[in-house]
Amino acid sequence: MKYLYGLTTAMITPFSKDGTVDLDKMKNLTNFLIEKGTHCLYPLGTTGEGFRLSVEERKQVAQTVVETANHRVRVYIHVGAVNQEDTIELAKHAHSIGAEGIGCVTPFFLGVNDREMEEYFVKVASSVPDDFPVYLYNIPQCAANDLKVEVVQKIANRCPNVVGVKYSYADLFRTSEYLTINQGTASVVSGVDRLFLAALAMGCHGTVSGVACVYPEPFVAIYDAFKVGDLEKARQLQTLTNKYILTLKSGCNMSYFKEGLKLRGIDVGYMKAPQLDLTDEEINELKRQLTEIDREARAMGL
Amino acid sequence: MKYLYGLTTAMITPFSKDGTVDLDKMKNLTNFLIEKGTHCLYPLGTTGEGFRLSVEERKQVAQTVVETANHRVRVYIHVGAVNQEDTIELAKHAHSIGAEGIGCVTPFFLGVNDREMEEYFVKVASSVPDDFPVYLYNIPQCAANDLKVEVVQKIANRCPNVVGVKYSYADLFRTSEYLTINQGTASVVSGVDRLFLAALAMGCHGTVSGVACVYPEPFVAIYDAFKVGDLEKARQLQTLTNKYILTLKSGCNMSYFKEGLKLRGIDVGYMKAPQLDLTDEEINELKRQLTEIDREARAMGL
Amino acid sequence: MKYLYGLTTAMITPFSKDGTVDLDKMKNLTNFLIEKGTHCLYPLGTTGEGFRLSVEERKQVAQTVVETANHRVRVYIHVGAVNQEDTIELAKHAHSIGAEGIGCVTPFFLGVNDREMEEYFVKVASSVPDDFPVYLYNIPQCAANDLKVEVVQKIANRCPNVVGVKYSYADLFRTSEYLTINQGTASVVSGVDRLFLAALAMGCHGTVSGVACVYPEPFVAIYDAFKVGDLEKARQLQTLTNKYILTLKSGCNMSYFKEGLKLRGIDVGYMKAPQLDLTDEEINELKRQLTEIDREARAMGL
Amino acid sequence: MKYLYGLTTAMITPFSKDGTVDLDKMKNLTNFLIEKGTHCLYPLGTTGEGFRLSVEERKQVAQTVVETANHRVRVYIHVGAVNQEDTIELAKHAHSIGAEGIGCVTPFFLGVNDREMEEYFVKVASSVPDDFPVYLYNIPQCAANDLKVEVVQKIANRCPNVVGVKYSYADLFRTSEYLTINQGTASVVSGVDRLFLAALAMGCHGTVSGVACVYPEPFVAIYDAFKVGDLEKARQLQTLTNKYILTLKSGCNMSYFKEGLKLRGIDVGYMKAPQLDLTDEEINELKRQLTEIDREARAMGL
Repeated sequence: MKYLYGLTTAMITPFSKDGTVDLDKMKNLTNFLIEKGTHCLYPLGTTGEGFRLSVEERKQVAQTVVETANHRVRVYIHVGAVNQEDTIELAKHAHSIGAEGIGCVTPFFLGVNDREMEEYFVKVASSVPDDFPVYLYNIPQCAANDLKVEVVQKIANRCPNVVGVKYSYADLFRTSEYLTINQGTASVVSGVDRLFLAALAMGCHGTVSGVACVYPEPFVAIYDAFKVGDLEKARQLQTLTNKYILTLKSGCNMSYFKEGLKLRGIDVGYMKAPQLDLTDEEINELKRQLTEIDREARAMGL
Repeated sequence: MKYLYGLTTAMITPFSKDGTVDLDKMKNLTNFLIEKGTHCLYPLGTTGEGFRLSVEERKQVAQTVVETANHRVRVYIHVGAVNQEDTIELAKHAHSIGAEGIGCVTPFFLGVNDREMEEYFVKVASSVPDDFPVYLYNIPQCAANDLKVEVVQKIANRCPNVVGVKYSYADLFRTSEYLTINQGTASVVSGVDRLFLAALAMGCHGTVSGVACVYPEPFVAIYDAFKVGDLEKARQLQTLTNKYILTLKSGCNMSYFKEGLKLRGIDVGYMKAPQLDLTDEEINELKRQLTEIDREARAMGL
Repeated sequence: MKYLYGLTTAMITPFSKDGTVDLDKMKNLTNFLIEKGTHCLYPLGTTGEGFRLSVEERKQVAQTVVETANHRVRVYIHVGAVNQEDTIELAKHAHSIGAEGIGCVTPFFLGVNDREMEEYFVKVASSVPDDFPVYLYNIPQCAANDLKVEVVQKIANRCPNVVGVKYSYADLFRTSEYLTINQGTASVVSGVDRLFLAALAMGCHGTVSGVACVYPEPFVAIYDAFKVGDLEKARQLQTLTNKYILTLKSGCNMSYFKEGLKLRGIDVGYMKAPQLDLTDEEINELKRQLTEIDREARAMGL
Repeated sequence: MKYLYGLTTAMITPFSKDGTVDLDKMKNLTNFLIEKGTHCLYPLGTTGEGFRLSVEERKQVAQTVVETANHRVRVYIHVGAVNQEDTIELAKHAHSIGAEGIGCVTPFFLGVNDREMEEYFVKVASSVPDDFPVYLYNIPQCAANDLKVEVVQKIANRCPNVVGVKYSYADLFRTSEYLTINQGTASVVSGVDRLFLAALAMGCHGTVSGVACVYPEPFVAIYDAFKVGDLEKARQLQTLTNKYILTLKSGCNMSYFKEGLKLRGIDVGYMKAPQLDLTDEEINELKRQLTEIDREARAMGL
């Protein structure tokens, strides 16, 4: 099955001022990211404000990305929703439109126990064909639920299409444990941008990065350097990349991503309430900081 | 304005086997709780699996409780939703059907900053009349967002109907700080059942309890003892109540509430996926434990 | 046995500029606190920078306080040390000089398991007579070890002189569990000044406060109001007291206590390295804030 | 200056049954570790139960290791103590006996602020010559104090012999930030055994491991594989090593190290109270588990 690997960009979602999705801008963003070298795309996740959209809107966004990408890169649709019914509907839809696979977050807000966690993911994974890959997505600091290693293994035992875990928390002990699932063949992708190189060294297949939505290039460069065994260069690139990550707030506030893209000439519209756009003051400070890091990046040949 | 006080019961929601709401059972539950002496009712909150319901279903549940209660006790509808539009629609609906007020949880999963938090609640509170009371609901361990004291004060400055905070986390430093809002006139209700007496002593108006959905009596008794200054009796009752709370899992798993109610003769149906009903083994253990505590309760005259 | 109750003041230790203990100043402080109404004294604990002193110095301080107090109030000596041998030597010494009892912190820095925790305290408590009261002292945020309820019960089963727990962390769930030890007869004193009233309401015997070293009066007043059932007054006093607590940094930095005492006319010397004295700027800001709260206190009749 | 690198073994301390240090056994352990290939030695740290020893005993242990090693490997003495005077005395002693350098933990139990932290380390580092290397040691989960990046930078600006940080907490964000100190030239060694490979990939000079006291070989093998660019082999070795680490309790309980060494034929005596030796049951279980992992290790050519 096709795994996520290298740089998977967690895409933001462009909104119009009235909070509706802007599909044209989504198309442009898709093209921008592919041209800049991203290996895979991941729309409608946390970074994509996916939970704020209706099921219908989510389908439209998914379709736009899949069609625009047209298999130039792998597209995985995030399908997790507050309702299990919606999640399953979105999973089936992702398969039907030709996405390469799906990711699905754990239930959130309401606590689930291990048995509920297992049954939930089995139901979702079973709703799509056995050869349609599914990543379980664990982001405990947002979801207030944690996905245990032994629960993943139980799910993987029951569902051949559960290929791995997308883990967006900086606990590398856990990461190392996920990497032992299925006798070490599970695919683990990290959502912790600042530890991309460390994750690769440990055996992760890649990173799923929101910051890469604005700056895919340094992430691609880290992966390339790592692949040819140039760890020293990879380290220097990671150090540079960390500056972008901190400046763009690591995914805590997607308005920084949207404004950053605007500064690069890609208009991705507005945030959706309750998320707000940046103030002028914040934009100016962001511009100032990015200009400085851009200069450093150019000096490194990026 | 009418505050929440004493025992506010956070109601569970009865579901049919297929996951649809069972309004008849909701009606029965409403009557049961009023007959047992609850001072206020709070449907559709965390305990009520509210986020799993459609907007339409939430309106039906709200209407059922308000009509059944018929102002025998105060009914506050929880209106928080993943979408701001839904939240506002539910707030207006709660007012239109004659509820005494509303509660609204912070945004969840996606992080919001202080400015976004403030604007969100101002929008919600402004969507209903100035004399329709609103409680801001903070449950950071589920929502992954925290509501700061100074943000509440800013909101309260802008919205006269924001009367207080429902706080469901066991940080009593924060509780004591919320109690200083509006020069000490804010209404703070605690969602931490085991600290009901401590919260009352500190000046909270009452508790919002999920466990009370099954056993309202000891909570009412704590409040009565406190009101007449009999702290020693209140302490003994709290110690007893804590046993019920721990046995019923403090609201971490509402299937314990549903099964507990069944054991008391109130059928409240099933859980909604991904939440699962208890296993037979779990039910038997629950029955055993509750029987023992019931005996102790009777010995105390409950 | 004689319990700690009401206000137990956790005493700071006055040092000369060269880091040696100043026993004359310790004597003055003891007299000041007794005159202001403290019910008990607790020297050489966390607040007293006890671990920085040699065993010999700790004995001198203990003797000074016991002799000066001369049974006007109860004196409990804190005897916990990094070495078990030192702890036991200090425990025996405290008994020999006529202290009313001792407190002993858990082992710290190095983790201990439940069995080690139990044996440690049994050894310490068994080194003094069966009628010489011992409080187990749990302050996990400093000691990096936590004292479980069931471990306390095991120790209490083996040692009749283990009368209770001094708990300096703001987890009131745990507090309520400690209160069930020995069928609810254990003596629990709280080290969380801001929750003094809440702790009393729950059944704690009192507070052990470092801030009270500077301002014993409002703590005594809270206790008095609570004892006569005037919860409203107790709440107002707690609100005032909280301002002192926050201004004096809640015991995170004892230089605030020393400077605060100096402002009240009690010279308690210097901090011991690595702890440093406040800067002039910090002193001026402290003076400004305390003056304001003092005014408020006077308006309340303190 | 000579850095710590590769495998630095954090040595345990052998005690006689009466709690006194057994220097002969310390000598044997030193030889064992050097023969097995450890690159550096680090006695008297957390793993070494250093704080339980008297200053005199600590000097004897330090001398024994330095003399036995006789510069075959680098020896860094841990000198942190509860008293600043003791720390400085131990630092001077370490220099006087010909150790290659020292490590020094932050103050512990009592909180220190940034200014106090800075002054403390400046005093310690200034007590030894400018070319005698000092590692600042941060282990916040034990010390209850955290060493900020900017504070390290300030100290390094004032003390040329402060060459880096030994960081024993699994926060790799912080690790990556320490690596930027002194324009990226600071030496950072990780105390998190399970992330040795990840730390090396990020640019750390090595690991300081307690588990390596029992099993130095796999750590040396990881380092060798990493050095020749064979990441795949390094990963397999790390996976194996993690099993040893978990079985030996990662340094939470040094009696596992002592028993593990005994099983390998190296008698390192007893634990010092309040730490206790393992029970027979625990020893049998440990033996069973290690036998299994040993078999796996042999299959990998170790």
